[in-house]
Amino acid sequence: MAHVHKLVLKGQTVPISTIQRIIKNNVNQCRKVSTNQGLWAAKTHDENSSNPVPVGEVKRYATDCMVSVGVKEDHASALADVLVAADYRGHYSHGLNRLEMYVQDIKSKICDGNAIPTVLKDKYSTALVNGQNSLGPVVGNFCMNLAIEKAKKHGVGWVAANNSNHYGIAGWYSMLAANQGLMGLSFTSTSPLVAPTRAKTATLGTNPITLAAPALNGDQFVLDMATCTVAVGKIELQRRKGLPIPEGWAIDTDGKITTSADVAMKGCLMPLGGAEETSGYKGYGLATLVEIFCGISAGATYGPNIRRWMDTKRKADLGQCFIAVDPECFASGFQTRMSDLMSHLRHMEPADPTKPILVAGDPERAHIALVDAEGGIRYHVNQINASAALAEKLKVKPMKHI
Amino acid sequence: MAHVHKLVLKGQTVPISTIQRIIKNNVNQCRKVSTNQGLWAAKTHDENSSNPVPVGEVKRYATDCMVSVGVKEDHASALADVLVAADYRGHYSHGLNRLEMYVQDIKSKICDGNAIPTVLKDKYSTALVNGQNSLGPVVGNFCMNLAIEKAKKHGVGWVAANNSNHYGIAGWYSMLAANQGLMGLSFTSTSPLVAPTRAKTATLGTNPITLAAPALNGDQFVLDMATCTVAVGKIELQRRKGLPIPEGWAIDTDGKITTSADVAMKGCLMPLGGAEETSGYKGYGLATLVEIFCGISAGATYGPNIRRWMDTKRKADLGQCFIAVDPECFASGFQTRMSDLMSHLRHMEPADPTKPILVAGDPERAHIALVDAEGGIRYHVNQINASAALAEKLKVKPMKHI
Repeated sequence: MAHVHKLVLKGQTVPISTIQRIIKNNVNQCRKVSTNQGLWAAKTHDENSSNPVPVGEVKRYATDCMVSVGVKEDHASALADVLVAADYRGHYSHGLNRLEMYVQDIKSKICDGNAIPTVLKDKYSTALVNGQNSLGPVVGNFCMNLAIEKAKKHGVGWVAANNSNHYGIAGWYSMLAANQGLMGLSFTSTSPLVAPTRAKTATLGTNPITLAAPALNGDQFVLDMATCTVAVGKIELQRRKGLPIPEGWAIDTDGKITTSADVAMKGCLMPLGGAEETSGYKGYGLATLVEIFCGISAGATYGPNIRRWMDTKRKADLGQCFIAVDPECFASGFQTRMSDLMSHLRHMEPADPTKPILVAGDPERAHIALVDAEGGIRYHVNQINASAALAEKLKVKPMKHI
Repeated sequence: MAHVHKLVLKGQTVPISTIQRIIKNNVNQCRKVSTNQGLWAAKTHDENSSNPVPVGEVKRYATDCMVSVGVKEDHASALADVLVAADYRGHYSHGLNRLEMYVQDIKSKICDGNAIPTVLKDKYSTALVNGQNSLGPVVGNFCMNLAIEKAKKHGVGWVAANNSNHYGIAGWYSMLAANQGLMGLSFTSTSPLVAPTRAKTATLGTNPITLAAPALNGDQFVLDMATCTVAVGKIELQRRKGLPIPEGWAIDTDGKITTSADVAMKGCLMPLGGAEETSGYKGYGLATLVEIFCGISAGATYGPNIRRWMDTKRKADLGQCFIAVDPECFASGFQTRMSDLMSHLRHMEPADPTKPILVAGDPERAHIALVDAEGGIRYHVNQINASAALAEKLKVKPMKHI
């Protein structure tokens, strides 16, 4: 229970029961979703949950797997950090669930596990980086650290990278900056899954936008959102349950909004906002903003030119963008105002008394507190089995639960 | 018709009939909405439309009105530019419709028409500006020009302002940067009208996000979006017609989603994404991002501390943020890639053949082409009458149509 009292959620100690309630009620942000690879990630305390696996053990296992296929220790560790962070924060789709994909990318040599990114252009506050087709987290850490250095010197660091790969949860990079008292932003283009408003085929990615900003006492605002309404995994989950999906999630192959999860899986995701009458074109605009900051700025692939999801015939050449800004360059007292606003929001009266108003990052903080309290991450049994099989295949020590 | 052939919409000359069709079909982006002051802005070619008023004449009239209440000529002109740009682009709610509000702000001395913004902090790529309670467009132009200067020297300019006022359409400032070959972004906090996800009262503004980015041959991507689903004006319009509103626009005073425009007017706007199940918390997160870039960074009012809409008992002290980035600092060929992506999007097959896929800025370009073709802006007769009454009150020459 060591970390639970550190949870800043209402400016007070939050009991485990409250955290569990928040997680339970916060289905849209916190539910562990199924994945694109057919695996499942466990809902905490689900009957299909494993015993907790200590965070350090997950990290050890993921690192070993990557090293076993020839990745340098520090690169393997960088990737493992991001995957573990995803699971730790409750975003199971982006954690261990993706490990085998990265392993395959290295084995097939479509991604270079040992390449070091290089700086192609450098100005006071900007840089263009060639990711050299290295692992996404290696490129991402390199770029964000450069942005942080620039922000500390010049106020802002704005770094665009080409020739990169999947970099895990976008929020990881923003938080690198926030952990140093800066505002951090990160963006990545992704494979086409989203149809622009009025179109019926996918040409834009789920293109996440993230902002992490520090508040007092280690509290942070951490927005990490795809610019589409929901990820594919949420639709898969509804399909498995035989349930319909809400309007605004997906369209069918004719471009018509569908509430059938089956039909949706053959169609496209919709941009945030959904239909045109509910301003879906704003989400479409934001997805395009991400393309502009990433592939268009960096001279990487963009929009329709990005390889399909799970295509491993050609390298990804993803464009990414990393921004750090020093709030001390503006009015002093930034963190105090951050905490004041976040406290105001968290204390607003909810429409439903069982569903408190949250601030971006709160569901993840609640999940972290739960993992800490339980001594590890609970995975769906399918994930555990898949990890064991991968360990055997790669001849690494399997992951050990408590 | 002089300017119509310049319309970059499908990479070819677009006849007026097509533009009219686009405007007609593009109801969510282009329809002229009613206003918060009870005035109406005309739908082009509506039976209530005036004859066209030349753009220069609108500018002359707006400038005269501001000068008549004691505003310096150049400040009056700066405000008029932004208001005229709004009407010219088809965003009538933010144009002449707002002129009387600015006049009142000057007359009541709640805003200083002659103050010059000052730089409080300056680093290579950043600045903190005290708007000195000057007119919003004076502060905005000052800040964006500073950001542009910094971007040209250091790659990025990131300027936060406090003590500012309503600055008109946010896209104006982004376009200042884009017109010089830069990416431009602008953000402003606004009076609380939007309820966070799960809340039942408004504590965040409509908080716009804008990005303008240059493409080839003068073409531009111009995203200028509130982070809520729709503006109040759209709800008013439905109410006047006796029509329901779509789910996702507004909640009632209990925090429940409503489809009644009447009920909605007493409730709150919803963030982009609408309900929690359609990811409204993402729009809520984006609105908070705007607060962080604006009031929180600049040390201005933020969120719940911002004065209510149309409250003139205390000064606005709005926070605003202006960013310029030089794409030449990244991969060369930025504008070529911009045009390629925009062309791809515009040529995608639409779900409904009568509704072409648009890129952010296209509806406004279509409206500009129509105004140019007609020789001026057509206003709703109520706007014309209100402007005539204001002219008489201020003893300035009334606006003259063709």
